[in-house]
Amino acid sequence: MCQRNFVVGDLEGNVDRMTDDIVRAADEHCDLAVFPELSVTGYPPEDLVLKASFVNDNRRALEKLAVRVTGCVAVVGFVDSHDGRIYNAAAVCADGEVRGVYYKHRLPNYAVFDEQRYFTPGSGAYSLFEVRGVKVGVTICEDAWVSGGPVADQAAMGAQIVVNLNGSPFHRGKVRLREEMLAARALEASCPVVYVNMVGGQDELVFDGASTVVDATGKVVARAPQFEESFLAVDVPLSRSNDGAPAGAVTPLAPDVTETYEALVLGTRDYVRKNGFTDVLIGLSGGIDSSLVAAIAADGLGAEHVHGVLMPSRYSSDHSLSDADELVRNLGIESTTIAIEPAHAAFLAMLEPSIGTGDLGLAGENIQPRIRGTLLMALSNQSGRLVLTTGNKSEMAVGYATLYGDMAGGYAVIKDVPKTLVFALCRDRNERAGRALIPASVLAKPPSAELRPDQYDTDSLPPYEVLDPILEAYIERDSTAADLVAAGYEEALVRRVVRMIDLAEYKRRQAPPGPRITTKAFGKDRRLPITNAFRG
Amino acid sequence: MCQRNFVVGDLEGNVDRMTDDIVRAADEHCDLAVFPELSVTGYPPEDLVLKASFVNDNRRALEKLAVRVTGCVAVVGFVDSHDGRIYNAAAVCADGEVRGVYYKHRLPNYAVFDEQRYFTPGSGAYSLFEVRGVKVGVTICEDAWVSGGPVADQAAMGAQIVVNLNGSPFHRGKVRLREEMLAARALEASCPVVYVNMVGGQDELVFDGASTVVDATGKVVARAPQFEESFLAVDVPLSRSNDGAPAGAVTPLAPDVTETYEALVLGTRDYVRKNGFTDVLIGLSGGIDSSLVAAIAADGLGAEHVHGVLMPSRYSSDHSLSDADELVRNLGIESTTIAIEPAHAAFLAMLEPSIGTGDLGLAGENIQPRIRGTLLMALSNQSGRLVLTTGNKSEMAVGYATLYGDMAGGYAVIKDVPKTLVFALCRDRNERAGRALIPASVLAKPPSAELRPDQYDTDSLPPYEVLDPILEAYIERDSTAADLVAAGYEEALVRRVVRMIDLAEYKRRQAPPGPRITTKAFGKDRRLPITNAFRG
Repeated sequence: MCQRNFVVGDLEGNVDRMTDDIVRAADEHCDLAVFPELSVTGYPPEDLVLKASFVNDNRRALEKLAVRVTGCVAVVGFVDSHDGRIYNAAAVCADGEVRGVYYKHRLPNYAVFDEQRYFTPGSGAYSLFEVRGVKVGVTICEDAWVSGGPVADQAAMGAQIVVNLNGSPFHRGKVRLREEMLAARALEASCPVVYVNMVGGQDELVFDGASTVVDATGKVVARAPQFEESFLAVDVPLSRSNDGAPAGAVTPLAPDVTETYEALVLGTRDYVRKNGFTDVLIGLSGGIDSSLVAAIAADGLGAEHVHGVLMPSRYSSDHSLSDADELVRNLGIESTTIAIEPAHAAFLAMLEPSIGTGDLGLAGENIQPRIRGTLLMALSNQSGRLVLTTGNKSEMAVGYATLYGDMAGGYAVIKDVPKTLVFALCRDRNERAGRALIPASVLAKPPSAELRPDQYDTDSLPPYEVLDPILEAYIERDSTAADLVAAGYEEALVRRVVRMIDLAEYKRRQAPPGPRITTKAFGKDRRLPITNAFRG
Repeated sequence: MCQRNFVVGDLEGNVDRMTDDIVRAADEHCDLAVFPELSVTGYPPEDLVLKASFVNDNRRALEKLAVRVTGCVAVVGFVDSHDGRIYNAAAVCADGEVRGVYYKHRLPNYAVFDEQRYFTPGSGAYSLFEVRGVKVGVTICEDAWVSGGPVADQAAMGAQIVVNLNGSPFHRGKVRLREEMLAARALEASCPVVYVNMVGGQDELVFDGASTVVDATGKVVARAPQFEESFLAVDVPLSRSNDGAPAGAVTPLAPDVTETYEALVLGTRDYVRKNGFTDVLIGLSGGIDSSLVAAIAADGLGAEHVHGVLMPSRYSSDHSLSDADELVRNLGIESTTIAIEPAHAAFLAMLEPSIGTGDLGLAGENIQPRIRGTLLMALSNQSGRLVLTTGNKSEMAVGYATLYGDMAGGYAVIKDVPKTLVFALCRDRNERAGRALIPASVLAKPPSAELRPDQYDTDSLPPYEVLDPILEAYIERDSTAADLVAAGYEEALVRRVVRMIDLAEYKRRQAPPGPRITTKAFGKDRRLPITNAFRG
């Protein structure tokens, strides 16, 4: 199982990555080397697939790879075109050539997936491939999620192993769902299933790896690690009556919160590096969100590549600076401090003829994060460092964030992390560190944007312990306000929260991308109109 | 033909709009009142369709409407659900009830369309509906774009008229393509086709109306106006041997450039008003882009609802202020001037310890538009006026725009308008005004961002007459760099431009929405990964 981190569009590089594994597989006397879905192009290639030159180049890259396949059989993912149609395909390569091609039958077109935009589904009779006398079926991703689908059909034709090439994005709990699905398929087919997933971040998606072999009884007999590359040699048990003994390494799964943290680390590292950056800038407020983002960045990129910027205002509390300083020391990162007062005073004076003085409300508050956004972007423009934003999912949901202010930056590390999970992730990271890496006072103090004196999040929002379950129900499960009231939430509160979510769509549309870790992230997972009169 | 401007999600309001037309149709002794696609929900409802409560409410709204249908037959668009599947449907209502339902057969899933994400295609035998002894076939949008599809099939079953409910978004030249398609369908089916389109803006889409009847010979015998609501009574000629005489009003089509201007006006007006705003703010630089946006806004919203903000910097030329002042007077709009120097000086001083002084390059330039963005947003936050941004498609393509600076705002009026078309639109508007509404000097001077002394767009970019055709080929037609070189463009220039386009994807992802007027706009029309190593 060749669980690799491919780069979308890097056709040459991806083929070189695969070549290394093919050579190693032959050296280690493996019969079959299986790669993830669309391994030649990276996944998802999105509208690149609509460019004829991209498809042509990917086929040339496949041919180049096929020539290098000797000593084992390799199954690799690529985009095929035939009679003007485009297919999500797997090539079976052996003895220096492509020996056969399988076209994905089931094309997901829901959630983050748009495969029917691009691909024609495979149809017609299946071919099995013989490898050292063993009949092997080939399937791709969604093909394995359906009962009575391609896996069962190929087994019925005599397949003794079915391999499944995957680009299966992470969300919390996904790996367990996936293994239940694999067990069901193996039992149904009475044959082992070899599931090979890609690993790595691609814009908003994180592919977690955890490639798995289940035997014919549905038992997991090999599992590659999550969130890292892996070349895992497995002796796949062909017989149903095997004793369920491990056929290769079975990497244990991390606890849910740790797993989520690792997904954020990988998503961030890959977005930064695959886009040609080495270093990042983070505005540090002394609050828990920016502290978590800094910890994730330091874990993902190395502390020396993380640069904190403290930008206190006239409303910043003493602890906001001291907590940020303590975090900087704990993480071993560098920091700069730029007080925003000169620009703040300048803006207020410039705006006075138009909007007056005194309590300017939201207009006055938003000036401060926008000054910070401008400072961070100036430092970014000058240094070539990417700005990471620090808003969480609860804020993105209700619009408790300033466009072009704290939302300004290249990657929004925790935009899919609800605030209550932000706390859990910090506690977990501290536990694993064996010390208060994120200072205890950061975890203890009540959340505040500090945009006016004595401001707390709970001035505008219900406590996050109340808010987050409402958000999860409304956003991830499409519950209605009526459902929430029936579940016991106060009606006025529910109406207010739902309205805030609906009205903030315009802000989310201008937010930077960030890693998806729930079953429904803002972004291509949730495509709601901005202009929308429905209140539900 | 009831060509109405529906609001996505406004189920009650949409049904009320239709009720007015149904009453009028009965009063005017019409036999059949035809409405656009998904007229109950508005189009496109996107992920609202995934909410069970939305689908339930839309069906209740339909039932309520059906009760009101007396004196004529009405065909209206709605979302149906049946056995857990969702359909893009048309209801035939008569005598106070829904008498029959048609499910759209062909579901577009390309360009801006995602219908396979939501809907199951209709299948099985067609039903024809009898209206005053005439057999009527019902189809929806894409159904009519295919030869040998539902239109031909229903005609073969005996349909004497086929109606086609539409949500067909505008792009330049679309109406002519559409009428060619309708003529082909009518000829193929040997029966008249009644094509009813919606009108209005919905986020990035503009629906242009121009509902049309073609007779059995393919001749246009009635056409409603573009870009406005219309109730058009038509005596549809059933016989193939009619003399092709007008069956109703045949509104002439406007010239291409004027039509495009009107699309921008409608898209802007509807985005502003449907989102609950009455007034807009526009940063006026004295340049052609902001001048055009102000003219469009004044035409769409009324001059009294347009507020210009002049924000000169130390690098602004005299003519930038005088030209903006002249525009303000010509349009009869209000304006305010806020010099950005105090904040500009403050930022430079605050950043000096980090990035020094002297020529700060891009970092120094970008500070200025970001100050302007912050000022506009403060005025917006205080006044409740929506900020319109002024960047054109050529700039969006190559990234010649500042994120959180000139890109900051709610709606990007000309983001799909290439710079050369910006000039043509201004000339056309002036011609129609019979005077230099947009000052002659604005049209005459060379484009400049004025972010450093003596800066011109051509310092960084090729002349727009050279750039725009490259952009159009690469973006709208997916030409490769190699194709462009083969077409005679200089290779180094092509490589540089293509690279700029690819690298600016991250900026475009954070841009506000704006009306689509070309065959491929940035937005859901063009879904390229940000993380993308392909150079093609």
